[in-house]
Amino acid sequence: MAVMAETPETGKNAPPPGSHVWRARAPFRLESGAVLPALALAYRTWGEPTRNGENTVLVFHALTGDQYAWGSHPLTGERGWWDFVIGPGRILDPERDFIVCINCLGGVMGSTGPSSVDPVSGRVYGPDFPQVTIRDMVRAQLMLLDDLGITRLRLAVGGSMGGMAALTLLQEARERVAAVAALAVGARHHAQQIALHALQRRAITQDPAWRAGRYREQGVAPEAGLALARMIAHLSYRAPGELQQRFGARIRKENASRIGEPPLYEVESYLAHHGHKLVRRFDANSYLLITQAMDRYDLAGPDQSLAAALTPAAGKRVFLASFETDWLYPKAEIDELETALREAGAVVTRIHADTPQGHDSFLLPHAAWMEPFAAFVTALRQA
Amino acid sequence: MAVMAETPETGKNAPPPGSHVWRARAPFRLESGAVLPALALAYRTWGEPTRNGENTVLVFHALTGDQYAWGSHPLTGERGWWDFVIGPGRILDPERDFIVCINCLGGVMGSTGPSSVDPVSGRVYGPDFPQVTIRDMVRAQLMLLDDLGITRLRLAVGGSMGGMAALTLLQEARERVAAVAALAVGARHHAQQIALHALQRRAITQDPAWRAGRYREQGVAPEAGLALARMIAHLSYRAPGELQQRFGARIRKENASRIGEPPLYEVESYLAHHGHKLVRRFDANSYLLITQAMDRYDLAGPDQSLAAALTPAAGKRVFLASFETDWLYPKAEIDELETALREAGAVVTRIHADTPQGHDSFLLPHAAWMEPFAAFVTALRQA
Repeated sequence: MAVMAETPETGKNAPPPGSHVWRARAPFRLESGAVLPALALAYRTWGEPTRNGENTVLVFHALTGDQYAWGSHPLTGERGWWDFVIGPGRILDPERDFIVCINCLGGVMGSTGPSSVDPVSGRVYGPDFPQVTIRDMVRAQLMLLDDLGITRLRLAVGGSMGGMAALTLLQEARERVAAVAALAVGARHHAQQIALHALQRRAITQDPAWRAGRYREQGVAPEAGLALARMIAHLSYRAPGELQQRFGARIRKENASRIGEPPLYEVESYLAHHGHKLVRRFDANSYLLITQAMDRYDLAGPDQSLAAALTPAAGKRVFLASFETDWLYPKAEIDELETALREAGAVVTRIHADTPQGHDSFLLPHAAWMEPFAAFVTALRQA
Repeated sequence: MAVMAETPETGKNAPPPGSHVWRARAPFRLESGAVLPALALAYRTWGEPTRNGENTVLVFHALTGDQYAWGSHPLTGERGWWDFVIGPGRILDPERDFIVCINCLGGVMGSTGPSSVDPVSGRVYGPDFPQVTIRDMVRAQLMLLDDLGITRLRLAVGGSMGGMAALTLLQEARERVAAVAALAVGARHHAQQIALHALQRRAITQDPAWRAGRYREQGVAPEAGLALARMIAHLSYRAPGELQQRFGARIRKENASRIGEPPLYEVESYLAHHGHKLVRRFDANSYLLITQAMDRYDLAGPDQSLAAALTPAAGKRVFLASFETDWLYPKAEIDELETALREAGAVVTRIHADTPQGHDSFLLPHAAWMEPFAAFVTALRQA
C-alpha cells in the first residue's frame, strides 16, 4: 500500500496533525478549463486496506467539514463530526473497514484552496482562486485514491455536500464503487438553496474587512461577515420546532430599552455561538468557493434528463435518507432523486426519518437513520 | 367629524402627500414606561364616516408598509400595497366604508419614529428611540380614532404585523370593534421568526455606515446592511416552489471565473432588487424598531393561557387566514390561534389557502383568500 509513502513532510507547510498530504504529480485541470499548477489534499485514514482496498469506505464531508470525521479536531479539540458513526463496533469500523476522509479541494485543513500560495504569482490566491465544482473535488479525490492503490470502494458516503460528492463519484467512476450513500441531499441545487448561499456570500463580501478577498495580506479578516453567513446557514440547518422547544422567545440579555441596542434572544445567542465557532476554524474565501461549487451542483446538467444522467447507477446499491424537518433539502427533492435512480436501475434503499433537528440530523445520532444505514453497510460487507 | 380639523400644516414638516397628520395632545407613555413627549401619526382615509363612524374599517400595515394602502405611493409611484382590496366595487369600498390606514408608531412616512427630532434633546432620536410594542402602536392609533370621533369600528384588519395589531386591538378595545381579520399571523412570535429578525438586525448593525445608529447626522446610511436585511426577509416571505419555478438555478451574470466575483443568480438578483427598493423608501433604525416590536409580540404574555388572554374576543367575529406555502407563519401557528379564539367564544371564520407565494400571499390577489374575506366583510355590513 502506498498510504505511508504519501505522507507528510514533503510540503512546505506541516500538514494538520494526524493528516497525510497527497500531492498531484501534474497540474490539475478543472471543469472550467482553469488549471491548478499544484494540488494537495490533506486526508486521514482509519483501519487497514485489504489487498486491493475493496474494504475501503470513502467518507465525504459537508460544506465546513473536514477530514477530522473521527478523533479530536486539532483546532477545536472537539470530537470528529461523525464520531458516533466511525469507530470500533460502530457502523464504519476501523477494525474491518479502511476508512478514508479527504479535506475537499478548496478546504481549509491542508488541501489546496484560496489560502494557498499560487506557485505562478508567488502570492496567496485569495479571491483569484478559480471556481471549482463538486465534480472537480471528486476527480481530485479519485486521483488521490489512485496513488494510494485503492482501485475499488465498497462505499462512498456523505451528507449534504458530502452526498453531492458521493453521487457525483457514482457518475464519474461507477466501475470503482459498489455502493453510495447520500444523506439529506437531492440531485441538484434549487433556487432557495442558492438564495440562502447568495445571502451568506453577501454577508462576507459586504464586510469591509473582506477587502475584495485580500484580507489575509492586509492582516484583517471578515469575521463579522463570516459569522453572519454561518448564522444564516445554521438557521437553515435546523428546524423551527426544535428551536422553539429549546429557545422559544426567551431573551438572554435585555440590553438597553433603546432600539440601538436590541435585546439578545436566546436563539440569536445560539446562532452567534455557532457563527463565532466557525470563524475560529474557517476561511471566508473558502466559504465563498465551496458555496459556489454547491450552487452549481446538478447531476443532470442542462442537456439530459436526471435518469439518463444516472445511468451509471444501474445495478448499484444506493442508500438515500431524507429528514422530515429538513426544510433546506426537503423530502420532495430526495423523492425526485430516488425516482430517477430507480428508473436508471439502481437498487435503492430509501428512508425518511422523523428527526427533530432539520438538515443537521445526519450529523446527530438518531436510530431512525443510523439503524437502516448500519443494515445497509452490513449487507455490503456480506455482498 | 374631526377628520379635516386634524390635517396638515400644523407641524414643522409637511406631511407626506395625501396624508393627514394627527398629533397627541399629551405625552405618550409606552408599555415600557418610557414617555414620548410628542407623538404624531400620519394617516390616510378613504370614504366618509357615517354619523358615529360605525362603517369604519381600520387597515393595519405590515413591517415595511405604510398608510398608502390605496392610491399611488409618493416615493415609489407604485400602487398601494392593498389596491386590489380597496376601491370602488372592491372588498373595502370607499363608497360604503370609511377606511382608515395609519402609519405605525415608529414608521417612516410621517409618524413619530427614530428619524424624528426628540423635543427634549433637540436632535434626531436615532438609536435612542425607545423600544415600542405592537400594543403601543395600537393604543396610539386608538387615540387618533378618539380624536376623529370614531368610537366604533366595523372591522380591524391586517396581515403579518398588521394582523398582530388587529388582534391586539381586539384585546385592548373589544367594545369598539365588531370584527377582526388577521392574515398570515399567529398568536405570538416563535424562535425562528425571531432568529430571522435578529439576522436582519445584525445585517444592519454590522454595516459600518450604521455608525451606532447615528448615520443620519453623519451623512451616511447603512444601505448595504438594510438591503441585505430585506433580502433575508424577502426570502422568508416567499416559498421555495415559487422561486424554483420562476428562477431555478439560472445565472443572470456569470462574472469572472474567480471565487472573489461569484456569479449572480437570477433568484439573488430578484432579492437584491427588493433590497434596493426598500433602501430607497425606508429607514434602518425604523427597521430595528419595528422588528423588535414584532419579536415581543405575544397575545398571551408569560402569565396566562392564550385562551384566557383572548376572552375579549368572546362573541366577536374573527377571520383568520393561513397559507399553505407560508413557512414563516406556518399553518400550525394559526391553528393554535384559532383553537384559543374558539375556546374564548369568538365566532371564527378560518381559511387555509393554497397559494404559491408563501407569506406574501396576503399582499397578492388570490380568490382563494379574497372570496372568503369578501364574504366575511359583506356579512359584517349586513350585521
